[in-house]
Amino acid sequence: MNNPIKIAVDAMGGENSPEKVINGIHIHNNNIKDIFYNIFGDQNILDPLIKKIKLPENKYKIIHTTNKIEDNDSPLSAAKRGRDTSMWMSIESVKNNHSDAIVSAGNTGALFVIAKLNLKMIENIDKPALSALWPNKSGMNIVLDLGANIECNEKNLIDFSLMGSALHKSLFDNEDAKVALLNIGSEEIKGNNIIKNTYQELNKKKNSLFEFKGYIEGNQIMDGDVNVIVTDGFTGNIALKTAEGTANFITSELKNAFNKSLLGKLSALINIKNLKMFKNKLDPRLYNGAILLGLDKPVIKSHGSTDEIGFANSLNVCEKIIKGDLIDKIKKNII
Amino acid sequence: MNNPIKIAVDAMGGENSPEKVINGIHIHNNNIKDIFYNIFGDQNILDPLIKKIKLPENKYKIIHTTNKIEDNDSPLSAAKRGRDTSMWMSIESVKNNHSDAIVSAGNTGALFVIAKLNLKMIENIDKPALSALWPNKSGMNIVLDLGANIECNEKNLIDFSLMGSALHKSLFDNEDAKVALLNIGSEEIKGNNIIKNTYQELNKKKNSLFEFKGYIEGNQIMDGDVNVIVTDGFTGNIALKTAEGTANFITSELKNAFNKSLLGKLSALINIKNLKMFKNKLDPRLYNGAILLGLDKPVIKSHGSTDEIGFANSLNVCEKIIKGDLIDKIKKNII
Repeated sequence: MNNPIKIAVDAMGGENSPEKVINGIHIHNNNIKDIFYNIFGDQNILDPLIKKIKLPENKYKIIHTTNKIEDNDSPLSAAKRGRDTSMWMSIESVKNNHSDAIVSAGNTGALFVIAKLNLKMIENIDKPALSALWPNKSGMNIVLDLGANIECNEKNLIDFSLMGSALHKSLFDNEDAKVALLNIGSEEIKGNNIIKNTYQELNKKKNSLFEFKGYIEGNQIMDGDVNVIVTDGFTGNIALKTAEGTANFITSELKNAFNKSLLGKLSALINIKNLKMFKNKLDPRLYNGAILLGLDKPVIKSHGSTDEIGFANSLNVCEKIIKGDLIDKIKKNII
Repeated sequence: MNNPIKIAVDAMGGENSPEKVINGIHIHNNNIKDIFYNIFGDQNILDPLIKKIKLPENKYKIIHTTNKIEDNDSPLSAAKRGRDTSMWMSIESVKNNHSDAIVSAGNTGALFVIAKLNLKMIENIDKPALSALWPNKSGMNIVLDLGANIECNEKNLIDFSLMGSALHKSLFDNEDAKVALLNIGSEEIKGNNIIKNTYQELNKKKNSLFEFKGYIEGNQIMDGDVNVIVTDGFTGNIALKTAEGTANFITSELKNAFNKSLLGKLSALINIKNLKMFKNKLDPRLYNGAILLGLDKPVIKSHGSTDEIGFANSLNVCEKIIKGDLIDKIKKNII
């Protein structure tokens, strides 16, 4: 680990970048004092933005490049022509131990492929997984895989249980990790053979990192009884996006209901503090982004469409992962 | 088809049955005049309930049995010992053409197995599918399969497209059926081989029943651009239940927000009409239950936990399916 901790920031990826990235650094730096930012991107654009937020000179370094990965680049073409882009160079920076973690709001597929090309897998982990935070009634879930692996075998799902638990422990130090397999019923006989075999294996293996709680169904994800939810990348991606779509549908219907009458608008005004609390609890910026697990360096993907607050939260996740020794936790517990 | 249309009603399944079933018939009969109900259950319990709702004698017949399938019966034990239960006898009633459709709020697995044991598959359909209504911005989706088949091949998914479209046309006569495959990306290269092959097949096949619109992702289910959403039973079950869980989570958080202060409670009162409209639009009783497709008779599953309004809506679905010639529509269009 570098001292101070260094985060490699791809400043050029995602909507409204690099403005939101630099403003995100501003918010993060105001809250957390012991971080150094290696910022990758076009110096001519970055310099005036950084001047504006008055980031102290000893807190950052710009590594200049005019090239960047575009959102519509295919992962393959990004990998082929990407070597001097801000994304590639920021990943290289963790590879060479110049930074401790990398964050980008750019093209997910490209980030995934370039990270896999440059970084080593943790020994005995077969496949990396994409994980994310997902709120529940009592705190936060880690859910994985969210699309990196369409098909997973028993070993993959067991690895995901372990990596997800290590991530949960890094982010929420004083909570116990409780793992569940996402399935279509809670009885032991439900699901396909891979899930059933994984259940048996996890039930047998005792370990100090997590407690295995069996199956949960889709409607139990947010109950808060477990906090690490393991599934294959196809199912996880569909579940996460379905939840997103449902949340958007409900909040837009709710807005319509309030806007239907003057009285409605008025009472929404009266109620503004309560509605704000409601919105805050569900604010997707609070659990913005995804974490790529299984590589020997932390790779954090911020949502392309998030804003500066969302990006600041991704920086927060980087910092917690480094301080929480995520990679070490995985290495020590891998079976 | 019987004249008048006859619906076989398993009166003994689900929570608060047979009360909610009989009250559901009451609501349904008040709105739709040309239906006859074959009611299966314990005459001693049913008689006083029916007397209470003053259902005219020429609108129903009680077929007496004291046996019933319990919620915790395994499908296998239900099939073994079920012959003189209200569920089995009501399915037999459609088998023998004494009724045109069957509805039950009882044990889903048992209903599924007993229906498969007693009823024929529609020719050229390999697997039956469980489908349900799911609201979107502009109307209603049909989503299938929701758990009957954990693994599906190309032929199954094509059959589901066709059966789902026939169901949509039966229920919403003046709308065009627009089919999409649920996937983890909208590009042609995404997904596993079965999904990709199905995409190619559906793209080639022109038919008069539906338009094929390609892939959608989980967050697009409620957009209203398509209305028949096809997936395997594992993914469909997880997606539906995740949406349910998310909706419950958000509405309970919203309730908390409103209840936080006196002012909040007051403004909720002021806003009661708007909130009611909001609630109505999302009322799960409006799209209560599931429809088993692929058998040569309509089998409708009402939610076990629904109330009389939900059950009345299931009767409504029965009636529309019969009048809309669902089974004929499937038979004529099967490839």
